[in-house]
Amino acid sequence: MTNITTQSYRGARDFYPEDMRIQNYIYDTWKRVCRRYGFEQYDFPILEPFELFAAKSGQELVNEQLFSFEDRSGRKLAIRPELTPGTVRLLAQKYKQLPKPIKWFMIGNNWRYEKPQMGRGREFNQLEVNIFGIESVEADFEIFSIIVSLMSEFGANQGTYEIRVSDRRLITSLLSDVLNLNERDQASVRRIMDKKAKLSKDEFITALVSTGFNNSQASLVDTFMSSDITSLSRAIPKGILQSNDGYKDILQLFELLKNAEIDKFVTFDPSIIRGFDYSDKLVYEVFDKNPGNKRSLFGGERFDELIKIFGDYELPGTGFAMGDYTLLEFLKGWNLLPRFENETGFFVTLWPGTSDKYRSYAIEVAQRIRNMGINCFSWLENGTKLDKQLKYADKKGFKIAIVLGDDELNDRTVTIKNMENGKQETKPLEKFLEDIK
Amino acid sequence: MTNITTQSYRGARDFYPEDMRIQNYIYDTWKRVCRRYGFEQYDFPILEPFELFAAKSGQELVNEQLFSFEDRSGRKLAIRPELTPGTVRLLAQKYKQLPKPIKWFMIGNNWRYEKPQMGRGREFNQLEVNIFGIESVEADFEIFSIIVSLMSEFGANQGTYEIRVSDRRLITSLLSDVLNLNERDQASVRRIMDKKAKLSKDEFITALVSTGFNNSQASLVDTFMSSDITSLSRAIPKGILQSNDGYKDILQLFELLKNAEIDKFVTFDPSIIRGFDYSDKLVYEVFDKNPGNKRSLFGGERFDELIKIFGDYELPGTGFAMGDYTLLEFLKGWNLLPRFENETGFFVTLWPGTSDKYRSYAIEVAQRIRNMGINCFSWLENGTKLDKQLKYADKKGFKIAIVLGDDELNDRTVTIKNMENGKQETKPLEKFLEDIK
Repeated sequence: MTNITTQSYRGARDFYPEDMRIQNYIYDTWKRVCRRYGFEQYDFPILEPFELFAAKSGQELVNEQLFSFEDRSGRKLAIRPELTPGTVRLLAQKYKQLPKPIKWFMIGNNWRYEKPQMGRGREFNQLEVNIFGIESVEADFEIFSIIVSLMSEFGANQGTYEIRVSDRRLITSLLSDVLNLNERDQASVRRIMDKKAKLSKDEFITALVSTGFNNSQASLVDTFMSSDITSLSRAIPKGILQSNDGYKDILQLFELLKNAEIDKFVTFDPSIIRGFDYSDKLVYEVFDKNPGNKRSLFGGERFDELIKIFGDYELPGTGFAMGDYTLLEFLKGWNLLPRFENETGFFVTLWPGTSDKYRSYAIEVAQRIRNMGINCFSWLENGTKLDKQLKYADKKGFKIAIVLGDDELNDRTVTIKNMENGKQETKPLEKFLEDIK
Repeated sequence: MTNITTQSYRGARDFYPEDMRIQNYIYDTWKRVCRRYGFEQYDFPILEPFELFAAKSGQELVNEQLFSFEDRSGRKLAIRPELTPGTVRLLAQKYKQLPKPIKWFMIGNNWRYEKPQMGRGREFNQLEVNIFGIESVEADFEIFSIIVSLMSEFGANQGTYEIRVSDRRLITSLLSDVLNLNERDQASVRRIMDKKAKLSKDEFITALVSTGFNNSQASLVDTFMSSDITSLSRAIPKGILQSNDGYKDILQLFELLKNAEIDKFVTFDPSIIRGFDYSDKLVYEVFDKNPGNKRSLFGGERFDELIKIFGDYELPGTGFAMGDYTLLEFLKGWNLLPRFENETGFFVTLWPGTSDKYRSYAIEVAQRIRNMGINCFSWLENGTKLDKQLKYADKKGFKIAIVLGDDELNDRTVTIKNMENGKQETKPLEKFLEDIK
């Protein structure tokens, strides 16, 4: 028989306990901050009907990256590549019963068939945070506040990241009002715009010209994408701009951010597009400012129309999804990861005698420590030399070992050994339990 | 366009916030108890190479229940139906580096293609708890202690469940030493034995006879399965029994359980078989004692040889996996589920004036509450009548609302409204923040 591989599937991660402590730190921080804003957690299955993603998740994701297959009854399924469509499915299912607004978050595992690279695998976990039922930009403002709180809870300050925001309605105005493109052509141009960062200026212009643009039209798109909020009128005439709802929302959003003193984390950037077909108004991405690795960490958007794939519902939505994989690279890059220590309070040894009385006392001590809610590891195997037990405790990073030999047993005491400096102290069991309370 | 269904895939569950609170209660309890015994959490991907399960997970699971498919490069994958093979894969991968013994737990999602029924779906989450590197029954003893602690943490006492334990080596002795079957015939008989509970005595005897047994041989199997520890010798001669390592382990296990005063939760029951091909010594299942629903809740076993599918390793393993789905039915059946309330401390209203000053003050109050680590929901939409805001707060179960009108704004006070009895009180903001600290 050939041996089976011990490696995980390509692009997927194994989490040994030392990795899992970091994951738990990330998940716990995500949960804590979302709950602090009164958001409620939900969840749904990793397998979903294929159609859910085919409808709106974007061509590249569905045609090239989706893990999809048929079950034993021929039902076409997909492993979710993102959390937004499933989230909206739950809302549509209980559309009438759910009191609005709805502030929800979830943490879920996603899969995309991609070439694995640094900070990106085939498998990743995301925090999904959304507000539903509020059409105005006040909801987006709270979403931005949560992003800033999350980053700050991870120790990231203004120097380390920035939120770049735009609005799809500005792009639509440029492509339809100014350049008179039909919807299909708008979509192809938008896809090229979304890739701009990976192209030189010449390549970008050439790609646009290949869609049928002349040079000055292509240049206008380039001008638009490198504008700031005050120079936008070089690309979109002032009259059109001032009646554009996207423009109004951006201005109001910055007003709200300024009042709350978090505008310093946010920049207007019309080159932000987002790859999902459901992004329809505000779009934003959070960038790492690390000079060695200036890339998008995560993003979000308005998706007011997405729920319509389920029927005649009205429920505006806005929010973002933050991935664990890129977040971890970011935290490492800025040296923001805390050091994680062994979570277990006490290591209770087992005296290597042959009598059952040593085990009985060791179990009693360990269980009484545990009954106080304190974590405690018990050595289990009979006859292991004490030295070997303590060596193991040291290797595993336990801070305090409890030794229970004949004296301790007879006097009902415990000997407490500090594993860092080797000091030890003997005291009555009851006193010890009182002290650690 | 046809609308997409809002239902989840058959046999899989959506968790709305009220369901998710229960899930989090289960997960948090699982984690807390395992950590209390010094166990460390790990994790691995839900997609694994197909071969991992084909090797040892059992025929029914692999041939009828596995969700398997090929990725875009033709690699055959499976969605995991259980957590044990992947766990052992991680151990084999770092076999040399990991200090032994290893005490690990994980919480993971599994999928099996089954007919959905009460307490069982196609998708479920499991707590997997194992000790590796200890061959003696002391490890199994600690595993049993953890089961009792877990059940007790969920409020389940002796009247509600029982652990029924046997040892595969007793069955092997019956089938090979007493009935002289070869390994293949042993496996078919074992499969029939595993189904005994679903058959009448006559059906059971008939099924055994169909494998080639005569009536007295079939009766002997039935006698074995209904023995207790003292009457086992009716099926296996005393001489054979007393040199059987399974028998010795069972006796020693009960000795340890008795010393720790948890033997009352455990019964010897030779009808326990377990369906996995890797179960090789001690096997056990935990049964609900509810007269209306006396079924197996979860189980565990020794699987000392499983690691050999990866190569020439020696690492005995023992442990159990507890599913969320059956656990939840159990807790409901015994009325052990706590009532979960809204986790958010304060509901901060937004005064429906047109001036920005109301929002600025409301944001300040909410953020200062959050900065103290207290959860706080903010009303976001401008111009919503206060009545409507409070009605929403009431519907969502918020306990305390904060009202911030002109007086509060001018005096920098807050009006605190108790949502349960309607009483309200106004005090300076700083005093309020001091009080809730």
